[in-house]
Amino acid sequence: MIEKKAVGEAAAQYVKDGMVVGLGTGSTVYYTIQKVGEYVKEGMNIRAIPTSEETKMLALDLNIPLVTFAEVNHLDVVIDGADEVDCHFALTKGGGGALLREKLIADATDLFIVVADSSKMVEKLGKFPLPVEVTPFSWERTARQIEELGSIATRRLNGTEPYISDNGNYILDCSFEVIENPEELSQKLNRIPGVVENGLFVNMAKIVFTVEEGKVVRKMK
Amino acid sequence: MIEKKAVGEAAAQYVKDGMVVGLGTGSTVYYTIQKVGEYVKEGMNIRAIPTSEETKMLALDLNIPLVTFAEVNHLDVVIDGADEVDCHFALTKGGGGALLREKLIADATDLFIVVADSSKMVEKLGKFPLPVEVTPFSWERTARQIEELGSIATRRLNGTEPYISDNGNYILDCSFEVIENPEELSQKLNRIPGVVENGLFVNMAKIVFTVEEGKVVRKMK
Repeated sequence: MIEKKAVGEAAAQYVKDGMVVGLGTGSTVYYTIQKVGEYVKEGMNIRAIPTSEETKMLALDLNIPLVTFAEVNHLDVVIDGADEVDCHFALTKGGGGALLREKLIADATDLFIVVADSSKMVEKLGKFPLPVEVTPFSWERTARQIEELGSIATRRLNGTEPYISDNGNYILDCSFEVIENPEELSQKLNRIPGVVENGLFVNMAKIVFTVEEGKVVRKMK
Repeated sequence: MIEKKAVGEAAAQYVKDGMVVGLGTGSTVYYTIQKVGEYVKEGMNIRAIPTSEETKMLALDLNIPLVTFAEVNHLDVVIDGADEVDCHFALTKGGGGALLREKLIADATDLFIVVADSSKMVEKLGKFPLPVEVTPFSWERTARQIEELGSIATRRLNGTEPYISDNGNYILDCSFEVIENPEELSQKLNRIPGVVENGLFVNMAKIVFTVEEGKVVRKMK
């Protein structure tokens, strides 16, 4: 079984006719989007908001109609991947660099569904470096403030140049090793003025699709 | 007496040889910067970080040496203007659109000095619309979330186009009429994912230079 394909496709069952759908970014939700594209081809009437330019391109290829927040205020369902998922459904996201849009979109729904192969399920978050989106101006000072919270912060590069997010910001990948209290850390990070957003998604996911003992399982909070 | 000139120049006395200085933006701190330019011409050795492209240009014109946060972590003093100042030294800032950089710089000092003519001194903040810097993506939804806190949010324009901050964001000017609890409102605003920063500066200013009964006064907290 290709886990990413299996869980990605399984989650697509939550997309129903007439819905406004948030489409995440990454190699697992890719399969969700492909499935949604099939539904649209078969005549399902949905509208979608993509979390990244990459997903936007994929959705356009599949003729999935797109909308923006100028037209809608609330999403019926959002499906997205994660880099790590703990047993309380707290997530680390943003390895792909789309964390701000992903969080804005996850914030606009009451039904946020995560698709994650078994390698993403962890007891505690922190092994995967936490991405933190920061304002380029004074990013060096912001990095030092984040390091005071117990991490090593490395500016993400694109070749030899700084990686620039879809929103024109830098991403700092912050190694905390173990994150004991994701909610507290998220609040502390967001209180630093140069931090635009961080990759911790706490108390947001309602359903997680993953694989256990070779089978796709749906976990509900 | 030209109040802006009198208070702007008075605050410059806090700039001493060897200091790293944060220079604000606006029509009052303009006179502070001119005075600092005179000090530099007379041989004073300082380095400065400007809060905006506009102040950067002015400082370069006056031969004030500039540094960035790549080289320094802490500022000895920051002098900036405000749109409103209440009796607890809480401020509304950002009418000029530089609020994020202004806050990042004010956060980097233990001595934040405000220069404000008498028209800026108020009992309660709120008459001046509060500027809130937001991510362009999903700004409409962010505006609605801010309005739920009791304001009317208007996107700032530059002619007929949206005004773009130095950081590539939009500014929403939010009319709250009266802000009863600036600290609480600031926290609520910053918890909205699309809000990058807001123009409330609470518990930051240590000294305010203003004019009372025709005389420049220095108020200390």
